[in-house]
Amino acid sequence: MKILISGFGTVGQGFADVMLLRKDFFTERFGDEVKIVCVMDSSSYVSDPSGLSPGELLERKKTTGKVGTAGYEDSLKVMDSTEYDLLVEVSPTDIKTGGAGLRNIRHALETGKDVITVNKGPLALRFCELVDLAKKNGCKFRFEGSVGGAMPIINLSRENLVGEKILSIRGIFNGTCNFILSKMDNGQSFEQALKEAQQMGYAETDPTNDIEGYDSACKVVILANSLFSRDVTFSDVKITGISSITSEAVSLAASNNMVIRLIGEVSNDKLEVSPRLIPRGHPLSITGTLNAAQMVTDLAGPITISGKGAGRIETASAILSDLVSIMDDRKERAGRCQNP
Amino acid sequence: MKILISGFGTVGQGFADVMLLRKDFFTERFGDEVKIVCVMDSSSYVSDPSGLSPGELLERKKTTGKVGTAGYEDSLKVMDSTEYDLLVEVSPTDIKTGGAGLRNIRHALETGKDVITVNKGPLALRFCELVDLAKKNGCKFRFEGSVGGAMPIINLSRENLVGEKILSIRGIFNGTCNFILSKMDNGQSFEQALKEAQQMGYAETDPTNDIEGYDSACKVVILANSLFSRDVTFSDVKITGISSITSEAVSLAASNNMVIRLIGEVSNDKLEVSPRLIPRGHPLSITGTLNAAQMVTDLAGPITISGKGAGRIETASAILSDLVSIMDDRKERAGRCQNP
Repeated sequence: MKILISGFGTVGQGFADVMLLRKDFFTERFGDEVKIVCVMDSSSYVSDPSGLSPGELLERKKTTGKVGTAGYEDSLKVMDSTEYDLLVEVSPTDIKTGGAGLRNIRHALETGKDVITVNKGPLALRFCELVDLAKKNGCKFRFEGSVGGAMPIINLSRENLVGEKILSIRGIFNGTCNFILSKMDNGQSFEQALKEAQQMGYAETDPTNDIEGYDSACKVVILANSLFSRDVTFSDVKITGISSITSEAVSLAASNNMVIRLIGEVSNDKLEVSPRLIPRGHPLSITGTLNAAQMVTDLAGPITISGKGAGRIETASAILSDLVSIMDDRKERAGRCQNP
Repeated sequence: MKILISGFGTVGQGFADVMLLRKDFFTERFGDEVKIVCVMDSSSYVSDPSGLSPGELLERKKTTGKVGTAGYEDSLKVMDSTEYDLLVEVSPTDIKTGGAGLRNIRHALETGKDVITVNKGPLALRFCELVDLAKKNGCKFRFEGSVGGAMPIINLSRENLVGEKILSIRGIFNGTCNFILSKMDNGQSFEQALKEAQQMGYAETDPTNDIEGYDSACKVVILANSLFSRDVTFSDVKITGISSITSEAVSLAASNNMVIRLIGEVSNDKLEVSPRLIPRGHPLSITGTLNAAQMVTDLAGPITISGKGAGRIETASAILSDLVSIMDDRKERAGRCQNP
């Protein structure tokens, strides 16, 4: 399995960390066949058909600011000049156009490569197109880390709950908002809580994408398309953020033993992000930067999963789970006829 | 896939319900090959190689109190006289000896049959023996519903988190205790809360098994053996129940923004059930009859899953997920060489 990584920011570097940490695991499970053959960041690339050392990639990025040893003009040309099986697309999210990520994923699928991504832009904008492209070309296309980071909601729903009908999903899909709302539970104002989130590095200088619910909306779109077979995009989501939530509203909720949480909701006829009252002690009343999702199923009832929604290693761990799954499949296919 | 069901109480009947509800799902996914060929309860049995109707089984149990049309002396003889592929063992739990369940499971595995069970007794007492027996005879042996009912903790850990190292699991494994402790959060005394649990049908007349932590301990043993490759039994667990928790202790916890929950903990060197202080808003601070489990992993961090720990259809849904998984595997094996 020859891997091409596009994007070498937090998640790309986290994936390199994970490949280092899981070297023995891969060797034991799959032999010596997993290697990174090419990595691009926004301005440079490096490739080696015999495999690149994750440690060296990380070191060069740290010392020079670039992962590569050469510049490039067009990422598609770098891809075309590389012999690879799987693209790990982790370049920056662009939820307006899909950005370089969309172009790279499309090109990989068009040329018959498997793709793992955590890039929400392409998924929120062009989900059905990309899934169709993958099907047409016989490619695996996985994106566990795009919703809820380390929280394995997509694979859980598709694999473990395969016998269930999922009637709806409600969840906390943005850790920054949940951090702010948790701080407000403790008496802080929205402005104080946002400032603290920025100081902690959870919120960006321009926090719009998080606090206005846009990031949550992307995830809701991905879940609607992947788990409810809908064909929706970002602009179909009814969105209300948390910026107008007052301390008074939080206090009033508390006096009724409730908390306010920013909830994304998906079902066959719902697609919404909005602040909701959640009873204390409910699985979606959790505090801090965690993400959580509650799937209501027809037989098992409500199943809730929670985990870290962001973080270098945590998000990379979702890529790992997709990678292991794709490799297990390949091994299975390769084993056919040899071991009937 | 010819199924023999031993036990036709709540869970066995729930499984019959599920087979009715999922008739189309099975036909679509696997053709007409899934059928129930024999069912036993404690005193009767019925068998038909061409398949029994779940609706008729449920109806006869309801009207006559027995699932079968004939009596039997030895369940193993009924098993031997039936041509079947898979035993669904859902007879009553006996955590002292393993009871009929242990005998049935052993016999099925010895004769090369796959087994799905939710029966905690055999698993808490003879886990390693049964797993070894299954391996030796090339049988599938699955038991998702034995821990946390509908909450898919075992399959989640084994399948979705396969690339992770699970460092520890802490969880709420008894819905009755959690119901009682949640009621105590609202100011009830232990005695009042227990009484209400009994009135609601959550606690039995003799509630010892739940409130002294024995039921939770069984689940801790199953997790230790299945997910940590340990070889432990019920008597290895350090157990403290909830019967001596006072209203004062609960109030004191609340004044520190904490709740008391009965937590089972498993790791490579821990095996314990005891009441613990949990911060409000923590994924294990949930209220009501839910079960929950938090797996701390080395890459993804903490992943928490929660769901209904009991219930006719809910527990049966865990059997369904094991069954689909076993059948997918068979289909995969059968497909080899025909479709390489």
